Amino acid sequence: MNAEIIAIGSELLTPFRQDTNSLYLTAKLNELGVDVIFKTIVGDNRDHLTGAATLAISRADIVIFMGGLGPTEDDLTREAVAAALGLELYRDPEIVANLEKRFAARGSKMSPNNAQQADVIAGATILPNANGTAPGQWISEEYGGRDKTILLLPGPPHELKALFEEQCMDRLRAKLPPQYIATRELKVALMGESQCDQRIAPIYRRYPDVETTILAGTGEIQIHLKTRAPFLDEAQERLEELIQEIEEELDDFVFSDNGESMEQIVGYYLQMRNATLAVAESCTAGLLAQRITSVSGSSRYFLGGAVVYSNQLKTDFADVPPELIAEHGAVSQEVAAAMAEGIRKRCGATFGVGITGVAGPTGGTPEKPVGLVFHALAGERGTEVIQRNFPGDRKRIRWFASQMALDMIRRKLM
Amino acid sequence: MNAEIIAIGSELLTPFRQDTNSLYLTAKLNELGVDVIFKTIVGDNRDHLTGAATLAISRADIVIFMGGLGPTEDDLTREAVAAALGLELYRDPEIVANLEKRFAARGSKMSPNNAQQADVIAGATILPNANGTAPGQWISEEYGGRDKTILLLPGPPHELKALFEEQCMDRLRAKLPPQYIATRELKVALMGESQCDQRIAPIYRRYPDVETTILAGTGEIQIHLKTRAPFLDEAQERLEELIQEIEEELDDFVFSDNGESMEQIVGYYLQMRNATLAVAESCTAGLLAQRITSVSGSSRYFLGGAVVYSNQLKTDFADVPPELIAEHGAVSQEVAAAMAEGIRKRCGATFGVGITGVAGPTGGTPEKPVGLVFHALAGERGTEVIQRNFPGDRKRIRWFASQMALDMIRRKLM
Repeated sequence: MNAEIIAIGSELLTPFRQDTNSLYLTAKLNELGVDVIFKTIVGDNRDHLTGAATLAISRADIVIFMGGLGPTEDDLTREAVAAALGLELYRDPEIVANLEKRFAARGSKMSPNNAQQADVIAGATILPNANGTAPGQWISEEYGGRDKTILLLPGPPHELKALFEEQCMDRLRAKLPPQYIATRELKVALMGESQCDQRIAPIYRRYPDVETTILAGTGEIQIHLKTRAPFLDEAQERLEELIQEIEEELDDFVFSDNGESMEQIVGYYLQMRNATLAVAESCTAGLLAQRITSVSGSSRYFLGGAVVYSNQLKTDFADVPPELIAEHGAVSQEVAAAMAEGIRKRCGATFGVGITGVAGPTGGTPEKPVGLVFHALAGERGTEVIQRNFPGDRKRIRWFASQMALDMIRRKLM
Repeated sequence: MNAEIIAIGSELLTPFRQDTNSLYLTAKLNELGVDVIFKTIVGDNRDHLTGAATLAISRADIVIFMGGLGPTEDDLTREAVAAALGLELYRDPEIVANLEKRFAARGSKMSPNNAQQADVIAGATILPNANGTAPGQWISEEYGGRDKTILLLPGPPHELKALFEEQCMDRLRAKLPPQYIATRELKVALMGESQCDQRIAPIYRRYPDVETTILAGTGEIQIHLKTRAPFLDEAQERLEELIQEIEEELDDFVFSDNGESMEQIVGYYLQMRNATLAVAESCTAGLLAQRITSVSGSSRYFLGGAVVYSNQLKTDFADVPPELIAEHGAVSQEVAAAMAEGIRKRCGATFGVGITGVAGPTGGTPEKPVGLVFHALAGERGTEVIQRNFPGDRKRIRWFASQMALDMIRRKLM
């Protein structure tokens, strides 16, 4: 079984807005074992929409329309799908009554244009929308000698998700051959994509029944694994087998095998060890602290820290001796170490981190080019410093530096 | 003239990857006065791709294919477009020679599969790709009695952008009726979307020749304006007229009328006044510092600050009297003000900011619920504090708080 997703709305054909619902729907359909074969984005135009609907219904088993169900004259999905299927629309009095009640509850009178949201395609099952005014519709039709399933869903993500989850997943599952799908996500820190792929390709190629997708982010690679089997535990065991082989190969570069973020993993380790953390950031300037505290409950292990952009503050907040800065420069192994040690002591933390570097685009020199960053981690038993030359722009360099610092903590506590 | 954009690649039909090239291309096509009427996403499947190509060429004036030009057997775009147009492919010896040279320069021998990148559709203009191996192709064909322009572009964004910018824009412009398009972007801080629209809709409705798109982000609304005219200054003047009316209505809620970010605007003002800034963050925990320093050159006005997650650090780094915290609680107007004043003094800055609040999801009480944030700005002439109850999750609350603090600085310096 395959599916086509059609996103409707002229705003999705501007440079500013992008359909993201389809990523959610694709994940859900994949869960059911359904592949998405086309995604189409079409504006609020009757002819374009009817054409796209006709084509999609002819080529896919399941067609999901998102958006265009509202009360304005731009909302044409119902009409277009009815026309594509050669079916009539009728106005459902119960939906009209519900809409009127909804408006009355808010103390206002329904304007007449709202009634078009009660137009239903002949034979459709109505899918009530708890989060909005326009209900969805489910149509099972024979078309060109094949069974087709056609869904009309509202465009706002929270309406669409609730409606699909609660009213469509089980109905779709009942139409599909019984099978189970298992997925896992491994995350790898600070390794090149091609290097990673070179090392694991010989492994995952021996698992042709597992779909392996490798995605590279900044300082992080995600390895998505998916397989299907007649029984769930069979599918899960198959993934576990492959994961063990990959983890053996990549060793401690793998920081998560269940989709957790680097910030979460570092938090787990710190809590497990009853340890606390403080940070002194120069070039990352708050990014590291902000990432650590993006995890709810991080106040249990994160004390705080200092953003020491100026040399004066490196001394005032992290006790870096001014002579050290004068001698080695603010961007140096020595200053990074002093920042980590100073902030650790000042905050009374188990571990202290210091980051200093050149984020660019200006401020680089032949000796200390843009991208040069020193990361220091100070603990009870001493301080280690890692130096890196990161590629990319200011944003990328800062992200790399925060990732490296988090990874140093992770490796220390592992 | 209208266009259809076709993004090719099975990875774009997974839940993990999204076509983003089309946003860039849409902006560029809009600049030329070309509307995008469809976007289609199709996998690496010969039949699907040929079908999508045939349809697109029949319904749009300009069809742009992105991706599927590489050396693997999954790269089918050349074949599919040739089939859709009923044209032959030939292998261009010059491109083959260039490819071989490229490999030789890296000291390796070209594997035979690479040669398919030299396959050219009969009559196409070859668009050399300075950043990759696969060249693009430009085809002008009559199809169904109409002139069609068909572009084959590589998928990697930096290859696509360079190639489109340098080799396609002028060629397209030459095909289009001469007209000029002016665009502007207004940004509005901390106002509700519906409130904003209610206030400006009566204005922009009087400019039917200007396309107005309103987008709401967290704590920020973008108003995109676009118009076209036979002369550029005419189009620009028309926008300027509308902008003046909108700015009159929204007054100092508008913080930018040329697309600048809030961080940039605050930076401009601080530099203009020769002022410096230091921040003490509790619930935002580095987010504010990180946003301010995302602007290159921010070291000229940003000194640094402290992430004072724990009460102890509020005292140690921002000189907040422990009694004050004991009496009013860490999340209070008094502590916010003391943080701002303390950090200002400690850092010797013109202005100091203090932020303390409950980012959630835990830690809220009936008295101090999740979302409650106090923002303080201390200057030479005193300290002001703004209290807000922000809606949403941890991420949204933290972003709102950082936005409010930046907006306080902006309003102070305006």
